[in-house]
Order: sequence, then structure tokens, then C-alpha cells
Amino acid sequence: MKVGVLGARGKVGAEICKAVDAADDLELVAQIDAGDEIDALVTSGAQVIVDFTHPDVVMDNLEFCIDHGIHAVVGTTGFDDARLAQLETWLASSPKTGVLIAPNFSIGAILMMRFSAIAAPFYDSVEIIELHHPTKADAPSGTAARTASLIADARKKAGSPPFPDATSQEIEGARGADVDGVRVHALRIRGMIAHQEVVMGGPGETLTIRHDSMDRASFGPGVLTGVRAVGANPGLTVGLEQFLDLD
Amino acid sequence: MKVGVLGARGKVGAEICKAVDAADDLELVAQIDAGDEIDALVTSGAQVIVDFTHPDVVMDNLEFCIDHGIHAVVGTTGFDDARLAQLETWLASSPKTGVLIAPNFSIGAILMMRFSAIAAPFYDSVEIIELHHPTKADAPSGTAARTASLIADARKKAGSPPFPDATSQEIEGARGADVDGVRVHALRIRGMIAHQEVVMGGPGETLTIRHDSMDRASFGPGVLTGVRAVGANPGLTVGLEQFLDLD
Amino acid sequence: MKVGVLGARGKVGAEICKAVDAADDLELVAQIDAGDEIDALVTSGAQVIVDFTHPDVVMDNLEFCIDHGIHAVVGTTGFDDARLAQLETWLASSPKTGVLIAPNFSIGAILMMRFSAIAAPFYDSVEIIELHHPTKADAPSGTAARTASLIADARKKAGSPPFPDATSQEIEGARGADVDGVRVHALRIRGMIAHQEVVMGGPGETLTIRHDSMDRASFGPGVLTGVRAVGANPGLTVGLEQFLDLD
Amino acid sequence: MKVGVLGARGKVGAEICKAVDAADDLELVAQIDAGDEIDALVTSGAQVIVDFTHPDVVMDNLEFCIDHGIHAVVGTTGFDDARLAQLETWLASSPKTGVLIAPNFSIGAILMMRFSAIAAPFYDSVEIIELHHPTKADAPSGTAARTASLIADARKKAGSPPFPDATSQEIEGARGADVDGVRVHALRIRGMIAHQEVVMGGPGETLTIRHDSMDRASFGPGVLTGVRAVGANPGLTVGLEQFLDLD
Repeated sequence: MKVGVLGARGKVGAEICKAVDAADDLELVAQIDAGDEIDALVTSGAQVIVDFTHPDVVMDNLEFCIDHGIHAVVGTTGFDDARLAQLETWLASSPKTGVLIAPNFSIGAILMMRFSAIAAPFYDSVEIIELHHPTKADAPSGTAARTASLIADARKKAGSPPFPDATSQEIEGARGADVDGVRVHALRIRGMIAHQEVVMGGPGETLTIRHDSMDRASFGPGVLTGVRAVGANPGLTVGLEQFLDLD
Repeated sequence: MKVGVLGARGKVGAEICKAVDAADDLELVAQIDAGDEIDALVTSGAQVIVDFTHPDVVMDNLEFCIDHGIHAVVGTTGFDDARLAQLETWLASSPKTGVLIAPNFSIGAILMMRFSAIAAPFYDSVEIIELHHPTKADAPSGTAARTASLIADARKKAGSPPFPDATSQEIEGARGADVDGVRVHALRIRGMIAHQEVVMGGPGETLTIRHDSMDRASFGPGVLTGVRAVGANPGLTVGLEQFLDLD
Repeated sequence: MKVGVLGARGKVGAEICKAVDAADDLELVAQIDAGDEIDALVTSGAQVIVDFTHPDVVMDNLEFCIDHGIHAVVGTTGFDDARLAQLETWLASSPKTGVLIAPNFSIGAILMMRFSAIAAPFYDSVEIIELHHPTKADAPSGTAARTASLIADARKKAGSPPFPDATSQEIEGARGADVDGVRVHALRIRGMIAHQEVVMGGPGETLTIRHDSMDRASFGPGVLTGVRAVGANPGLTVGLEQFLDLD
Repeated sequence: MKVGVLGARGKVGAEICKAVDAADDLELVAQIDAGDEIDALVTSGAQVIVDFTHPDVVMDNLEFCIDHGIHAVVGTTGFDDARLAQLETWLASSPKTGVLIAPNFSIGAILMMRFSAIAAPFYDSVEIIELHHPTKADAPSGTAARTASLIADARKKAGSPPFPDATSQEIEGARGADVDGVRVHALRIRGMIAHQEVVMGGPGETLTIRHDSMDRASFGPGVLTGVRAVGANPGLTVGLEQFLDLD
């Protein structure tokens, strides 16, 4: 399968190029970045592209690809409902083309979130710890907040009771942030990259799911899974988990 | 729902009695152990029984219960194919009665095994660490060996390649036991009870699922789940996971 | 060595009795609780006592013991400067008697605190996570707060800079409680007993020290260490760490 | 302080250059590698050098430095007793010069080893888990084997009894490698870099010390500690721990 990469000289894009190059069943035929001609996708015969560019240019890139029947795997951020609706419209005119929009290509993060949501209703208590480098601006991380929401949804659907908590004397902040009723604790530690632990407990036992992300290379397997599956899934797909066999 | 417990004075049975007693929707109507009359189940109006007795007596207990249309949740060990076939025969004559035979009532252990099997094909490497008290006779634990088998099955089904391992100089035993191709490491540590960690890794990321079991009380929620579900599931069911919503 | 236990029918006291009983070099000669005559210590020939009673009675107990030249190992709380001064006065009249007052007999907790204080000045970042059962009233735990203070002291003494933290967008509480400048995160999880983790990090590496306390039995070895050492250390000693070889 | 780096274009050497450059109190005045003239150390006025070169050239480098009164911090391997004796001889003629030979500049690894050795005699059970990338040739790692030896020494000195272990049925290798009587378990997991956990336990409690090394940058702080201290410590020093305040 012939693959083009848009945003090929960015930090993530460069890792994707390496991963495509290393895969026996994929051929890297185009590496495009700001200033390069997008027509190279057509002349190189790219069948699928990976886009890690910028919200300002990604829609133009996708319009071009859909027009030319080139499937797309997109990690660029900034997709709201209006953008997704626009993509649906374009895809209606090119019914064999597939586009995957995914906010997260880390298979480990996806598994952690899914397993946590499945397990949460079986436990009395669920809390989240996330650990990142101290140059991060937001606390908690987007992944931790999203995990908390998924846990809260799963418990609501299952009719789970509120979490037990007898705290009556608290030094402010000790019990963490409340995200949809789930407590989230954010550590900022030099040497850490991106780590998260979901801790669940019931009478006499606990279950802990931990994801450690050490390197941008961790996006590689998820992106390649998308590249291999997107052509067989025409139309718009949101979320890599749609292409993973999780049952 | 009226519940009887067989083996009520055993260590696990006593915990089950406490858990039934503490549940608002369940009434503990009979506590039976060696020397007591099993007829008390009928006179007390028990609708479901829990059996944590002994392989020597469990079949007689179950024949009695099935005869009297009392559902059964069974944690006693020793069920081979012949015994399961016998149960099927008895149940054929009492088609509204449900029997659940489960080797493990720890919901955490069940979730750990299931999540590991789902996740394993997405990773290059998977190994298991189990930690138990130093008076344990077998290494690795039965749960660890079973987890390894489930992981091996899942990877075989998915066509996963062998695990990478460049070890050329090894002090004997350093790389653990090989259970169906999965490396298992057993620690024996005073103060530990029963703990297991499944460690999985791919490029730049790892996923770890850890189960800590500190107390026999951990069987309670699983047994109660069985008690509540078995009446609505006539016939023979093997494995508590059949009654858990795991998707 | 002949040992008496005061508060022998309390939860901790009962564990201490068991531990003394199990030790080859110690003989349990008196078990005293509210309502019993303290003279039994003299008639039984107790050489050392262990006191896990109540702040209201502990001073009377100690006055009696010091008067009779019986060494004391004390886990009862409530010792302020006035009480310690009173003990010094009594001990001056009985110069061969030793009294150990210790807020914590868990050797693991003592080691965790000491190692954290030694290591903290070598790292850019240090934070504390503590996990307890959800019926605990205070957050963070006393041990976590004390660990934070010791870390802050060690860093101040070493001239360590403030911890790096670029957080500019925070959901309230996400970054934990500030105890002497050290961030402390408290989880309340059913199934947990008493657990603490000190996480330290510098460029490219992290060091984590974790203490898991599962059972009151964990006080046993610390109390016995005190019992064996107190006689050879006349006068007042505060803190079990004084009797441990930690270099 | 003016610093020169020998082996400046190697992987570790390049990290050291960065770390020296980033330190306010140090000036990087010479970066030397194979083919460069070592005289540049003198002309640049280097007061201390760091050597991460090769066993074949390190002795020549050190003879030159000692001759010119330049202090040296050495991470190059291959120092046997004969080489150390040679260094002592050279240093005798240059009594104000300091040389530090260290097999490990990771402060975290040094702390983990030291704390484990201090704590080990207080516990009934001690075992080691190490986790590395699957391209590593030896199992267990050198650091794990060294930690096991230090633990064994500490327990021998303290008169600690053998570890309890009731294992009677073992799948070969499950209980790990025996290094001086300490069980060591080696995992090989893609995505891991270099990680080690020392697990200790006694009645009702466990203490775990974990070191995670993610990046060569982790050597930086240790090397800089050596650079700043070596001039004030004339003569030969073996082991960075000699320069750390660990009490």
C-alpha cells in the first residue's frame, strides 16, 4: 500500500514516516510539509495519507484527498461538528473513500479508557492519577479528564451509587479535582513523560490499570492500524477504537 | 430473595453469610454445614443457595437443590466433564432451575484475565508477575498460569508473532517460567496476600493491569452477582463472567 | 525477657500480645486492660512493658513503671512537650530505666520517611500519593503530612530550589494539597488499607518509594525491636528510628 | 569551573556536553573525541575533564590529565585492580589532583542500591524485579545482580535468617534466578528502557523501591556532582556515592 505523510517534518510526522518505512506491507511514497506541493500525492500514486499538520490547513488537505479518492488517517486536532459535517458532505460525492479522524492514536490510552469504563461499575471506588513532565500547562491532562467522563458515564448507565468518602478534615486540594464526580490527581515530575493510572477498589480487592507513554513512537502502531483499515471502511470514522477488535 | 449458604462455617462461607446479610435485597434464611440437615433449605424457603463445601458432598447437595427447584451458585472445586454432564441431566428434569459453577468469584481476577486477553494481541511483549505470601506451595499461581494460557490463545487467534527476546546470557531462571510461551515470574514475599500484574509493551508505551486481592471479602461481590443472576439464567452456566456485562 | 502489655484487649494490644508470644526470646507475663490491677506487672516480674492505652491513663501507667524500674515502650498518643518534660523528671530519679515514646512503630513507614528525606535533595521534583480506605476522616494522612515536612526540611537544609511546575490551567484540586511546599495527593479507595508512595524525579529518571501496610500485624516487628532495645537505652527516647541501624 | 569532555561525540558524551553547557557554574571549554588533539585541554584551560571514551584509550587520557594537574571524572569501563594501582602511582606524583572512577552515574540507581541494603535486614523477604527492552543480551542486568549482592552482604552482616519459601511445585524458572541467595526476576518488554524494583516484606507490610531510567540524560546530574566535587577530593575515589551526602 502506497502511503503519503502530510506534516512529514513535524515531530510526530517524522516518527510516522519512520514507522511506515519500517513496515513490510507499506511504501512511503510522499513526504509533504509546509511549502511543498500537495499534487505530489497524486503523482506519487499515494493510496492513503496520514495528516499531522495544523487546524488551519487540514480541511484543504482533506478536500484535496477526498476529491482524488485518497483515503486519509488524521491526527490533526480541531474537528468540531461543523467540520465533521463538511467532511460527510465531501465524502458523499466520493463514496469509496474512507477518512479516519482520531484524537488519540495511542492504543494503550484507548485500551486504558475502555477497560476502565467496563470495570468501573463493578467497583465501589474509582480514582485517577496522572503523572506528566513539569512543563505541562494543564492539570489534569485531557486524557485523564476524558477517562473520568467515560467512567462517570458508565457508572451512570449502570446505576452505580456515589463513591464512598468520609473525608471531613481536608487540606485544600488533597482529594484532587472533581471531574464529573471522579477524583483526578495530577503529578508534575521531572523525568516523567505521560503516565496514567486508574485505581478501582471493592471489598478486599483493587484493580489498577496503568498506561506509560515514553515516546512519540507510541503513536506508530495506532496510525499504521488506521492506515491498513481505513480503505476497507469508506465514509467518515471518528475514533481509532472503531478499527480495533476489542471484544 | 431468600438465600441459604452451604459450608456456612468455613472461612469463605462465613464471609458469604456476612455479605448476604449486609445486602438489602437478600435475606439469609439458612446456614448449613457438616452435620446439619439439608432439609432446612426447604423449610426456610431458600430460593437460591451458595455452596462452598467439599468435592465429596457437593454433588449430593446439588441433586437435592435441583430436585427442589432451588437455584445454586457453586464455588466448590472438583468439577470435571463427567460431573458437569451429570448436572445437565438433572437440570433437564427441572428446566426452570439455574446452576452456576465458577472456579473464581473475584471480579477483579476475571477482569484482569479478560482485559489481558483483549490487549495482548496489540503488543509486542507480554509477561506476568505474581506476588504471594511465602507459604504458598505452587509457583506460579493457578491464576497466573490461566492468564498466560488465555493470552497465548488470544495471540494465536490473532496471528501475533513470538515475543522478541535477545537474551543470550542468562542466570538460570532469570527470565521466569514459560507457560504456553508467556513468561511468568513468581515472587514469594511475607506480608503479601495475592497480587498479579500483567505487563504489556509496544514501541514507546506500556500497559500494566494489576490486581491486588487482600481479603476473602473480595469474593463477596462476585458471589452476590451470581446469586442475583442465576434464577434468570436456567440451566448450567460455567464461569461467573457469563453474568457480567463486559462489553 | 519478661514482657507485660497494657491495653492488651485493644486491637493493637492484642496483636502485640500475639507477637510477644511468638518470639522465642520474650515471655508474655501480664496482659492488662481497663479494670485490671497494674500491680500485676510487679507480681509477674515484668521487665519491660508495652503501652497502647489512652492519653488519659498513660501518664499514670508510666509513673508506676518508672517507679518500679520497669522499662516502657509506648505507642499511646498525646505526648506534648509538657508530658515529655514530666517523663524526664521521673526518669531522673530512676536512672537505669528506659522509656521509648514512638508515634509510629511501622518500620516500613520509618524507612520510607527517612529514605525520602535523604533522596529528596537530589531530585528536581518530589510529590506524595497516599491511598487509604474511604472511611478515613482526614486527608492527607498524618504520615503523608509528616513525610512532606521531612522532605521540605531536607531540601531547605540542602538549599534545593523550588519544584518546577508550569501549570497555568488547573481544575481546582488537581495538583493536590500543598504541605510545606510539597504536593500531596490523597485517594480514598474501598479495599485499600494504608499505602503511600513518594515519587521523585530528575532528568531522565524517577525514584519511587512505596509502603503498603495491610495489617495491624505490621506494628509487631517495630514494637519488639523497641522491647529488646529499650533496656539498654536508659532515659527518654523519642522515635523508634533511634533504635534502628540506618546507616 | 572550566570543563573538558573526552568522548564528546559519543551518545553519553554528547549528553554530558549538553548538561555542562546548561549549568550556570560550569563552562564547557573543550570537546574532544577520537582524532582530536588532547593538548586542547591545556590550551583551553580545562580544570576538570569528564571521560566517556574506551578502555583502550582511557589510561593514556588519565596519565595526561594527572600530569597536567587536571581533575578527572571517569565513566569509561574496564578498571581492574592493576589499573587502579597504576592510577594511585601517577596520583602520588600529583598530590593535588583528584580522579573519580564510577561504574554508575545514575544517582537513582545508587540510592536504590543503598536504601535496599539498609532496609533488607529489617524484612523477612526481599526479591528484585528488573524490566528492560528486549534487545538486552544479559539477564538479569548488572545493576540487579549488584543490588542482590549488596542485599546479601547486608543481611549476612546483620545475621538475618534465610528467606521463607514453601514452594514445592514449581514450573522451572518461576521463582527467578538465585543471585547470592536473592531471587531476581528479569522481564524483557518492548517500550521499556531500564527499570528496577526491590520488593521487601514483613508481617502485614511491604516496602518497594523502584527506579525508572528513561533516558541517558539521567547520567547528567551524577556526572555534574562528580565534576563539582572531584577537585576538593584529591587522590583516587571509586564510586560516586563517596561524594553524595547519604546520611
